[in-house]
Amino acid sequence: MPSNLMSRQDLEFLLYDWLNVEALCDRPRFADHSRETFDPALDLSERLATDLFAPHFKESDATEPVLEGTEVQLIPAIAKAVQAFGEMGLMAGAMDYEIGGMQLPAVVASACFAWFQAANPATSGYPFLTIANVNLLLAHGNDEQIAKFVQPMTEGRFLGTMCLSETEAGSSLGDIATRAEPGSDNTYRLFGNKMWISAGEHNLSENIVHLVLARIAGAPTGVKGLSLFVVPKFLVNDDGSLGERNDVCVTGLNHKMGFRGTTNTVMSFGGDTFQPDGAPGAIGTLVGESGRGLLYMFHMMNEARIGVGLSAACMGYTGYLKSLEYAQDRKQGRPLGAAADTAPVPIIEHSDVKRMLLAQKSYVEGGLALGLYCASLLDDEATHPDDTVRKRASQMLDVLTPIAKSWPSQWCLEANSLAIQVHGGYGYTRDYDVEQHYRDNRLNAIHEGTHGIQGLDLLGRKVVMNGGADLGALLATMTATSKRAKDAGLTQLASQLDTRITRIGEVTHTMWSGGDIAETLANSSIYLEAFGHVVVAWIWLEQIVALAETQSDFATGKRQAAQYFFRYELPKVDAQFDLLESLDRTTLEMQPNWF
Amino acid sequence: MPSNLMSRQDLEFLLYDWLNVEALCDRPRFADHSRETFDPALDLSERLATDLFAPHFKESDATEPVLEGTEVQLIPAIAKAVQAFGEMGLMAGAMDYEIGGMQLPAVVASACFAWFQAANPATSGYPFLTIANVNLLLAHGNDEQIAKFVQPMTEGRFLGTMCLSETEAGSSLGDIATRAEPGSDNTYRLFGNKMWISAGEHNLSENIVHLVLARIAGAPTGVKGLSLFVVPKFLVNDDGSLGERNDVCVTGLNHKMGFRGTTNTVMSFGGDTFQPDGAPGAIGTLVGESGRGLLYMFHMMNEARIGVGLSAACMGYTGYLKSLEYAQDRKQGRPLGAAADTAPVPIIEHSDVKRMLLAQKSYVEGGLALGLYCASLLDDEATHPDDTVRKRASQMLDVLTPIAKSWPSQWCLEANSLAIQVHGGYGYTRDYDVEQHYRDNRLNAIHEGTHGIQGLDLLGRKVVMNGGADLGALLATMTATSKRAKDAGLTQLASQLDTRITRIGEVTHTMWSGGDIAETLANSSIYLEAFGHVVVAWIWLEQIVALAETQSDFATGKRQAAQYFFRYELPKVDAQFDLLESLDRTTLEMQPNWF
Repeated sequence: MPSNLMSRQDLEFLLYDWLNVEALCDRPRFADHSRETFDPALDLSERLATDLFAPHFKESDATEPVLEGTEVQLIPAIAKAVQAFGEMGLMAGAMDYEIGGMQLPAVVASACFAWFQAANPATSGYPFLTIANVNLLLAHGNDEQIAKFVQPMTEGRFLGTMCLSETEAGSSLGDIATRAEPGSDNTYRLFGNKMWISAGEHNLSENIVHLVLARIAGAPTGVKGLSLFVVPKFLVNDDGSLGERNDVCVTGLNHKMGFRGTTNTVMSFGGDTFQPDGAPGAIGTLVGESGRGLLYMFHMMNEARIGVGLSAACMGYTGYLKSLEYAQDRKQGRPLGAAADTAPVPIIEHSDVKRMLLAQKSYVEGGLALGLYCASLLDDEATHPDDTVRKRASQMLDVLTPIAKSWPSQWCLEANSLAIQVHGGYGYTRDYDVEQHYRDNRLNAIHEGTHGIQGLDLLGRKVVMNGGADLGALLATMTATSKRAKDAGLTQLASQLDTRITRIGEVTHTMWSGGDIAETLANSSIYLEAFGHVVVAWIWLEQIVALAETQSDFATGKRQAAQYFFRYELPKVDAQFDLLESLDRTTLEMQPNWF
Repeated sequence: MPSNLMSRQDLEFLLYDWLNVEALCDRPRFADHSRETFDPALDLSERLATDLFAPHFKESDATEPVLEGTEVQLIPAIAKAVQAFGEMGLMAGAMDYEIGGMQLPAVVASACFAWFQAANPATSGYPFLTIANVNLLLAHGNDEQIAKFVQPMTEGRFLGTMCLSETEAGSSLGDIATRAEPGSDNTYRLFGNKMWISAGEHNLSENIVHLVLARIAGAPTGVKGLSLFVVPKFLVNDDGSLGERNDVCVTGLNHKMGFRGTTNTVMSFGGDTFQPDGAPGAIGTLVGESGRGLLYMFHMMNEARIGVGLSAACMGYTGYLKSLEYAQDRKQGRPLGAAADTAPVPIIEHSDVKRMLLAQKSYVEGGLALGLYCASLLDDEATHPDDTVRKRASQMLDVLTPIAKSWPSQWCLEANSLAIQVHGGYGYTRDYDVEQHYRDNRLNAIHEGTHGIQGLDLLGRKVVMNGGADLGALLATMTATSKRAKDAGLTQLASQLDTRITRIGEVTHTMWSGGDIAETLANSSIYLEAFGHVVVAWIWLEQIVALAETQSDFATGKRQAAQYFFRYELPKVDAQFDLLESLDRTTLEMQPNWF
């Protein structure tokens, strides 16, 4: 029986038939690889996700993390899963051989990680953050930091966090108040409180490695005054052994609607709970240069945003598969016109149920494909032999990242809502998984930059940066797909896409030609949503071009889902573009006292 | 400080300025009433909802009903609230004087009840079901049933349920298997299991009165074989005292994502847990005539569907007010272009936050107004002196009911999602109310007929019944509003509405002219959604016509919300109508093995 976590068939289609990841093995970095090494990594991931991550999906929701003094207790199954993940080498799947990694392409590592995100997004949060932390330290840390923290993190013995937000600084990181005071040696003393810190405290690992944004005394206000520090829970001696307890301490837990297995904490740095050497302050070391903290974080955060989008897609995907299974098994109702005494049919026979399944399929397969496409751009950006291609990948990633983050967060949540609806009343109960997927997935439009922040990033920054060249690179690639589609006989879909590609260019131009930045950005969330739908239509066209020659149920299903997306979803953007093009000021002009 | 449960100002505008409920007092049934009696009923409801319903909103979510043997324990605050509701006479707010009612118009009673639905939908579920139960018995029960059960229910000493669904019969009630065997006296013995029974067992009242759909031995299959029975938890003696325990017993609880304070049960009838007189079967009496059970239930259910829509609107409304309050208080970020060292502003100053608040306002005020409009049609249907108006009210209700149920269930849930988003990370925690509103509200698209069932009801039945006369009555009323709007100078909005009114007629005609019923109904959910958006645009136009002369922040806010709805929401329907008119077969032709 196929897994109801993810579709291995779809993953293999996306990797091998569409994105042609085997061609990556021609590049020096991946020279040791082939499908014979990729498949076992996928096997391992599927098995580990199925055996150790999925089984406590509901348990870690029902039994939340508990704060006991300065410790947080989690159910044992989480530690077991995370430890196995580390021991199997998956933390370092995409990392260099020299630090024990597998040097898998990012796209393959992402496909592997999809199994874990589908099986248990909350438990996957621990490796997710640790991998991001390691990647940041590898890019910007010094040798000592790498030596002390990276190796244990790749093995899963230490786990990592990202400490950005504070209670008064969530979307506005420039207001961060945590301060760092230089000591006599190379260390700093940190003082301040951080909010919304996922994995800030837990009983899963020997040590916790915090990457903390803080302001060195005398630094300017705003984001330019922020520096990045590595602050471990336990100081690490030069031989790698654990030293004293550092003065970083959990002071509270946030109790969430979903994603409950990922402990989410309020953290105090330098709160005098511990004083490792008799002096106040949490001891940390500077990462890279001072004043560049947010820049480093954003480097990491761009990959994390793609990862969040993939996570949203995977939650949507597993919800889809579970509702599909339910619809195949559950018998109720009859075809139109059938007599009352005939046997009820599986509900998948009803048009409205097929609609809800097709909608889910179009959202989740579109979202997954978009995420993997972006991951393959990360590979191109880092390893493609051709300068031009590397540059174009980088440009496309600039524009696609806010969409890859926000689109699945919106539409794969909608998929989860439809998965509940397919289950009827059962879907609303905790006896089934889908209500939890819906609760879990609602986080994704909030963390790693809210929906609104992604809209501002796309319209206010990405589409106009480099004189619009990044946007141009993406639109040119989309147009090339359309051309290939026409060559493959998919004329109608291609021309429907063409119309909207043109429209993106026109609308963007109009929005930026008014001269009033507030007016330009007033509807940036709607711009993000319309642009996102066009991008996913393009991704669907990409997929069916890739299987244009194929005759199979799988291929027919993909074509039907693409048709659904082009007929039921894509036309929604026209009204949005009309609104954007009118430079509507309704929201801008609304006054607080009119509410 | 104004309440953050509901807006008294909006309720008074809707009742007095728009729906002109004072004119109802010219009718004999409401002759004793005036604004001087309506206002105190609203006062009482606001106070009781605020003092006794709202305070345990979160507690009854966190502390779910517990099954102990054959009893279900709820937190004491629920009983206290429900008892006070009954003692203050609110169960019978709209009922006849002769049974102790207040004879309030349905529209005023609905406005009163809105406070409770906003304050605590789960606790409100108990009176909601009891009122529906009483109304059904008053309409179809015999004198003995009314004497034994109605009076104690109006006082809140007994509470009521509706027992329709079974595990194999949710949306397909024709498959109900519970059977009723006639006894030697006027009673029947019932045997079977019921599923999803809200308020099926609890510790809130002396007795529980179940209305149960069952099939008398020998009755035909399908819905025409269903009869309705009243089956009390405790038999009631002729003097009104409680007799023996009947053989109706809770056998399990459903654990839901939200709405947790409303106990939801699996019930066994005639399962031999109790044997009141030594013979098997739960003892019940037939309501009305045999074979007409579903008809009676639907009479009640139409009102209940409007009530569910109102409940969804109220959950959306309170979430909106809470996010508005948050946005006014929470300072973060700065206007575009402001220096980093200037003070942060309340987030309500940001366009995207205003967009999220305006969207909520347009959904929840539109949803509330739609629900109250339908309630006023119930008054017209029952009490208008003019036959023609009564008939038109009835026709309009036929068409509007599936929309009044489904539209708020969809869009006021979306409002709750936006309320979370306005709160950022805080909105995702259980420290704030909005995540619970989101969980609670998700139920409303499922119970009392799913979204898909409402779509089939609207397209498959309502718009073609009576030769399309019901649809015609609604569209004519909408057109009349548009004309009044033009007279008031609202030409642009009126013509935008006109276009879509015409479109509804054309699309409906096209969909029904193909001759293939499966094709006609394949996209009925989308028809429901598009139709619903046009209806709510009309309801918005109605509101701003009513305050066309008014200059105030309140009136300006309403106009801005209407503008938002007409510019951001209404144009969405065009793509939906295009799809519907094309008689698209994508969902119809999708095959199960292609998924």
